[in-house]
Amino acid sequence: MKTTLSVGLIGIGNMGSAHATMVGSGIIRGLQLAAVCDIDPQRLQFCMEKHPGVRGSTNWHELVQNPELDVIIVAVPHPLHADIAMEALKNGKHVLTEKPVDITVTKAKLLNETAAASGRVFGIMFNQRTNPLFAKAREMVRSGQLGQLQRSVWIITNWFRTQSYYDSGTWRATWAGEGGGVLLNQAPHNLDLWQWICGMPVEITAFCDIAKYHRIEVEDDVTIFARYENGATGVFLTSTGEAPGTNRLEITGTLGKLVIEEGKLKYWKLRQDILEVSRTHPDSFVAIEYDYEEIVQTEQETAHPGILQNFANAILHGEELLSPGTDGIYELSISNAAYLSSARGNVPVSLPVNGDEFDTLLAKLRENSGIKHNDPNSKYNTAYHQRWQVRW
Amino acid sequence: MKTTLSVGLIGIGNMGSAHATMVGSGIIRGLQLAAVCDIDPQRLQFCMEKHPGVRGSTNWHELVQNPELDVIIVAVPHPLHADIAMEALKNGKHVLTEKPVDITVTKAKLLNETAAASGRVFGIMFNQRTNPLFAKAREMVRSGQLGQLQRSVWIITNWFRTQSYYDSGTWRATWAGEGGGVLLNQAPHNLDLWQWICGMPVEITAFCDIAKYHRIEVEDDVTIFARYENGATGVFLTSTGEAPGTNRLEITGTLGKLVIEEGKLKYWKLRQDILEVSRTHPDSFVAIEYDYEEIVQTEQETAHPGILQNFANAILHGEELLSPGTDGIYELSISNAAYLSSARGNVPVSLPVNGDEFDTLLAKLRENSGIKHNDPNSKYNTAYHQRWQVRW
Repeated sequence: MKTTLSVGLIGIGNMGSAHATMVGSGIIRGLQLAAVCDIDPQRLQFCMEKHPGVRGSTNWHELVQNPELDVIIVAVPHPLHADIAMEALKNGKHVLTEKPVDITVTKAKLLNETAAASGRVFGIMFNQRTNPLFAKAREMVRSGQLGQLQRSVWIITNWFRTQSYYDSGTWRATWAGEGGGVLLNQAPHNLDLWQWICGMPVEITAFCDIAKYHRIEVEDDVTIFARYENGATGVFLTSTGEAPGTNRLEITGTLGKLVIEEGKLKYWKLRQDILEVSRTHPDSFVAIEYDYEEIVQTEQETAHPGILQNFANAILHGEELLSPGTDGIYELSISNAAYLSSARGNVPVSLPVNGDEFDTLLAKLRENSGIKHNDPNSKYNTAYHQRWQVRW
Repeated sequence: MKTTLSVGLIGIGNMGSAHATMVGSGIIRGLQLAAVCDIDPQRLQFCMEKHPGVRGSTNWHELVQNPELDVIIVAVPHPLHADIAMEALKNGKHVLTEKPVDITVTKAKLLNETAAASGRVFGIMFNQRTNPLFAKAREMVRSGQLGQLQRSVWIITNWFRTQSYYDSGTWRATWAGEGGGVLLNQAPHNLDLWQWICGMPVEITAFCDIAKYHRIEVEDDVTIFARYENGATGVFLTSTGEAPGTNRLEITGTLGKLVIEEGKLKYWKLRQDILEVSRTHPDSFVAIEYDYEEIVQTEQETAHPGILQNFANAILHGEELLSPGTDGIYELSISNAAYLSSARGNVPVSLPVNGDEFDTLLAKLRENSGIKHNDPNSKYNTAYHQRWQVRW
């Protein structure tokens, strides 16, 4: 049995180059960087010089078909994720894709089927799942500790980006190149955690504001209203135009409330189910009895390296994936539905989302999309950065 | 010139009896309780015994036409506010109504006209306007200190009420008797403050959940999405079915952010307009520079007595009204629009709201409304209570 997996990395832009540094440095046990791919020969050259012995190619097909590679990491623009991942899986590779898993539910479903048929390990880079506070919240909601879900509210507006950021890549913030804005690029982490913790909504109404704060053709400010199966409601607010922004998740259930913000999980534990109090208490106005506790995040989330290590362990030792690639469909269902709702005039859209209808909408948007010209000032980042970790 | 005004109080239920105690005790300078009115002879009897020398009547017309009275305070069920207030104004009385000013924008507009023509002082009991933190927030937004408004989010879910509360009055939580639920009874304070601080939205989309947590025929859980004229967005969440609930108002502008919660106003002051940074900064990822300060509420809000005193001072000394009756139309426009949006399938509704359309909707709802039977356990409260003050 193998103890070291040869990794082919496709896409060495912002995130890809960070992955190259991480895997190339040898700190992920069981993963060894063997080949990299980028359509930009200069990036490729730079990366190969930085990682001697690593093979380079400008053709991703070469990597997914290379019998010497065990693992493919996909870090290209989102609309290419599924095509590359599927071909890699079909060629017997284990695959880890950047988020989002792709840009349409249709593609995500196809990828799910391919992954299921492949028998290979398929992971997605939802690195914020490694944050212990979100994991704790998930446990509290899923175990019933909070009672029946009543409401979730996530204000996640600390994704500030400059115009310079949007100008840093030709594909960024275009329908054709990226397939969306903040919902497709920054918020997938939070949309994923939202559903990971609270479960999937059954209906979405959204207000996607296009080019509100930047010269772009996609949305940079969004309000989503969600309805859950039991009637509970949720609100999700995000933007790349506010500062310092807020990262505050509140979840209310019939047995208590939790708030995650500023690196703390605050927990109000009711001594009795609130609906029971409501139904049976003889008084009109009741002071609710509860116990309060705070859980402070003491250890750093393991973030990208944590997901990479878990992915390697899943292949080598059968460890359970913290972030299975198949889960990519969920947050994408929310964002696809949000675009549909917004396009239809902010009306409620049922989930599961109608993939054909979304594909038609996106095709129309992409028809008129102007892929931006290459910016010579675009920077080549080579290190993981705090900015991809949870910020409070 | 008069130095003491004779007050006629119409309605001595929950709030009215509290006003009777307050004005009757003589602590509002310039106001003297002279007459009270209630259709319930027992309540009337009880109140007159408690306040010797005060005249009683079961017919409100007697009070508004009584030449010996200078001031009428209206504390009957909401749908009667405007009719009584208008007749009182026409009879030359100064008028203070409980919130909401009535239940329809149509009535509120008519009342506005009557008030304007009367030349009398017309106030409304938006007692939470006396809270210094909300006043400070208003000043910060209105003065431009926060820059251009970007977003407002108010989670005001600490209005928990038991079934027993709803059963405590026949008119409560019915379309015919009260004209609505949490939007008409508890949230008017917050809807008013919301518009008082941030200004009026131009569009409302709402999700009014009927009888979600109680046996009632109206809404007890609401999510409102608001759009302001400059494109800014707002979200307002309220419920009478959660506990301990949250009272947290966040307002974001291009020059900073403020959060009011737990008796504090937190202020992040940006050193540069964020849109300016976004447009001109050469880097993709920018750590925003700001100064942080906290304003802690040290003095208790003056609440109901404060509004009563200000109202008396307005009549006797020309003091500016903190809460003019005419302002009652604003929060009512938001709640009327919310009901319309919800009834139309949660679609956006433009403001100013179409009064005729709302009246038609309400008439239909009231047709099928079941006014509840009198509950013999209904309590007669005689004191102001902390529950009407801002709770954190």
